[in-house]
Amino acid sequence: MVKDFSHLLSEEAKARKPSPLKSAFKYYGKDDIVFLGGGLPLADYFPWEKIVAYSPEPPFEDGIGAQPSITGKTTISEVHKHKVEEFDIPLARSLQYGHTQGNPELVDFLKEHTKTIHNVPYEEWDLCLTVGNTQSWEACLRSFCNPGESIFVEEYTFSSAIETARSLGINFVPVKMDAFGIIPSSFAEVLENWDKSKPLPKLLYTICTGQNPTGSSLNVERRKAIYDLACKYDFIIVEDEPYYFLQMTEYKEGAPEEVIPTPTHEEFLNGLVKSFISMDVEGRALRLDSFSKVLAPGTRVGWIIGQSALLERFVRLHEVSIQAPSGFSQSIVQALLGRWGQSGYIDWLIALRKEYSIKRDFTIKCLEKNMPREVVEWTPPIAGMFFTVVLDAAKHPEFATKYNKDPYQVENAVYEKGLEDGCLMIPGSWFEAPNREKTDSTTFFFRGTYAAVPLETLGVGLERFAKAVRSEFGL
Amino acid sequence: MVKDFSHLLSEEAKARKPSPLKSAFKYYGKDDIVFLGGGLPLADYFPWEKIVAYSPEPPFEDGIGAQPSITGKTTISEVHKHKVEEFDIPLARSLQYGHTQGNPELVDFLKEHTKTIHNVPYEEWDLCLTVGNTQSWEACLRSFCNPGESIFVEEYTFSSAIETARSLGINFVPVKMDAFGIIPSSFAEVLENWDKSKPLPKLLYTICTGQNPTGSSLNVERRKAIYDLACKYDFIIVEDEPYYFLQMTEYKEGAPEEVIPTPTHEEFLNGLVKSFISMDVEGRALRLDSFSKVLAPGTRVGWIIGQSALLERFVRLHEVSIQAPSGFSQSIVQALLGRWGQSGYIDWLIALRKEYSIKRDFTIKCLEKNMPREVVEWTPPIAGMFFTVVLDAAKHPEFATKYNKDPYQVENAVYEKGLEDGCLMIPGSWFEAPNREKTDSTTFFFRGTYAAVPLETLGVGLERFAKAVRSEFGL
Repeated sequence: MVKDFSHLLSEEAKARKPSPLKSAFKYYGKDDIVFLGGGLPLADYFPWEKIVAYSPEPPFEDGIGAQPSITGKTTISEVHKHKVEEFDIPLARSLQYGHTQGNPELVDFLKEHTKTIHNVPYEEWDLCLTVGNTQSWEACLRSFCNPGESIFVEEYTFSSAIETARSLGINFVPVKMDAFGIIPSSFAEVLENWDKSKPLPKLLYTICTGQNPTGSSLNVERRKAIYDLACKYDFIIVEDEPYYFLQMTEYKEGAPEEVIPTPTHEEFLNGLVKSFISMDVEGRALRLDSFSKVLAPGTRVGWIIGQSALLERFVRLHEVSIQAPSGFSQSIVQALLGRWGQSGYIDWLIALRKEYSIKRDFTIKCLEKNMPREVVEWTPPIAGMFFTVVLDAAKHPEFATKYNKDPYQVENAVYEKGLEDGCLMIPGSWFEAPNREKTDSTTFFFRGTYAAVPLETLGVGLERFAKAVRSEFGL
Repeated sequence: MVKDFSHLLSEEAKARKPSPLKSAFKYYGKDDIVFLGGGLPLADYFPWEKIVAYSPEPPFEDGIGAQPSITGKTTISEVHKHKVEEFDIPLARSLQYGHTQGNPELVDFLKEHTKTIHNVPYEEWDLCLTVGNTQSWEACLRSFCNPGESIFVEEYTFSSAIETARSLGINFVPVKMDAFGIIPSSFAEVLENWDKSKPLPKLLYTICTGQNPTGSSLNVERRKAIYDLACKYDFIIVEDEPYYFLQMTEYKEGAPEEVIPTPTHEEFLNGLVKSFISMDVEGRALRLDSFSKVLAPGTRVGWIIGQSALLERFVRLHEVSIQAPSGFSQSIVQALLGRWGQSGYIDWLIALRKEYSIKRDFTIKCLEKNMPREVVEWTPPIAGMFFTVVLDAAKHPEFATKYNKDPYQVENAVYEKGLEDGCLMIPGSWFEAPNREKTDSTTFFFRGTYAAVPLETLGVGLERFAKAVRSEFGL
């Protein structure tokens, strides 16, 4: 069922060999062999005997921001040098070399979680830890693309992801989007009309849920259509999904403010959009997941899900680069997840979704209240940290005169005015993918986030930005 | 004083640009600006309120392996979400995005430490955290070498470091060594006779203290001679120094077993061999340091020291790859170092050196007792985790007959016999650098470590290996 994609691997990935010492390491830990083969320091000399972490306790009725020391509901995670709880990663192991793929306890927890969420439709899938999605993405690029080759990207995308690829000498073929993400028919057209004298890009990079910067999310029909294109034209889909669990309740304009209901686990799970990996019958999707947006960025723990044969290439790469994520991170995160259990982790994700729904709702209500609708439009996001406001430069009284009919100039004027009035949002043009086709559209947008500030500050900021727009447009 | 080495940078390093969002981030944290620019989750939602770690307490009179819970001498490190101790990295910051170079508290501690140990002879040096020396080394390769270019390496070297370079398409020019590391006169000869039609390698990779695999250490005269060659022929020196603090007292053959004295801080510091960075008047050395061998490998915290202009390129690389080491690692390591202080950390290093001296001495005494001196030689290492035993295949009774005068075949026979008898040491030929010139020498060696096992097991292993040698050589 799963196909062989070794023809899509980069020269670098093809060249990777397991360490020559590997053949000796099969004797490591055997009773009848004294192993003097590896430069591993004795765990007795690691200066940490025990680590205790204090965290909130499921089911988080007081909200995920509630401090355990105040609520008295505390999950206490004790990790010792040697194993105490079955699910813990003892420090003697996590702080030692080894386990490039990740310590088995954490890998197993995440595999179990993956089964619940994505139900990957083939047997031979695997999971490999990384130090976060930026590194996961770099690993994908290095595993598939040779310098000079191209990749498909969303026409507006995370600029750091572009920079990762650009400095590796990779080129870009942008794919058109609307407020709901990549437009499959437009993508199909690009593929149909591809100049056969040029090699087709080997992969598509997509942030398909709560996209950065547009805040858009691909629905399941679009995902299916894009997946079919990948099969037809033989490319890999890299779904970069840090915001996947920040899917929210739908926004109802004008609905009275009310308490957001807490769904059951079943309702929550059924409400999640289907991922590419969940429809990946050929094994051509690579899913980049991460704790950065659901626990904390500084865990520096992400993971890649995909077919085993491809993941093996990532493990070989990690052996000669990052080795593995921090042992402290692995032990502490797994100690918490082990104590919460799969069910407690789902409780956390539900509580997190609630916080983001509150902030998204508040944001949209602020826009409704303050923004001049005659020049500004928005689509309430259903996932992620970002919202966008779309402005029409043609409605600016000095568009033809002062700004020479150039929407970029108006965009910049609004940015500057926003700064003057005390609110910073990022101009959408900063996220334009290289080689993006210019159109004669007069609209431009700004990316804002409701993630980084508390509600009150958010309200102040949005009021200021609306004032800047009004004053710039002479309203 | 410091020279500009931008002409030695790789195309990839030259192409790296700061993130376009950087220009916005200068407004982050300003009082009069509501910053809706970055997708940072609120620290309130990080599910860790406090982390407490239990470690041994300086000056470690009971040895570094002593458990704090038994000795009652405990350093308790409490890290909170928000700042309590001046030297601590609060979790709200370490678990957030940002600080690619490393959190300032830890960077400052390490800079202070670097001043004490290396006294870098120019002002414009800097320090950047990494996720360990393998990644630091990869970052060096990607910053200086284009695919197809060459580097100088020790003729026997860490095979994983070779593999890192090989899969990047880099070639190797091995430099001759003896029991004391690189032979400067031989290196000078290679440089003098370099075929001018080929570009000179841009860097030398050397594990100069307690070398892996040979256990050799370069003395200061050799370092100076090599440094002069680097200046004359314009290449970068990458000193990979994970074992630097595993420098030991000299081994005295036949001296009675006695308690190894504990040096004063001054004696200890004066006894350390001078590093390349300490003599680097031109700013052409990059020093790779790490906690892996002195605290624990799983911290996944290393650091690069070098001139600021070069380090800036590494920060740009990290922004689009690893981002930064784990925040847990940074907070926990710095909490410990902050409490121990610079002086307590030196106490730790002194105590560590003592443990390794004991193990080294024990190892050499085992060799003296068990090995057949007529076919085996060794040089007691003065640093690191590794020792080597050198054997002469010509002394094997069946060298010319059964083994066809091929030392590699005898090496393999001894390896197999060792396994049969229950001790694994690694054949030296496994560490041969690619392109190493074959000689008509009939000797070969095995690398062993005294790091990974307790003394008793080490004794059993060495006895078994000696037995294997004797039986293979018919002694």
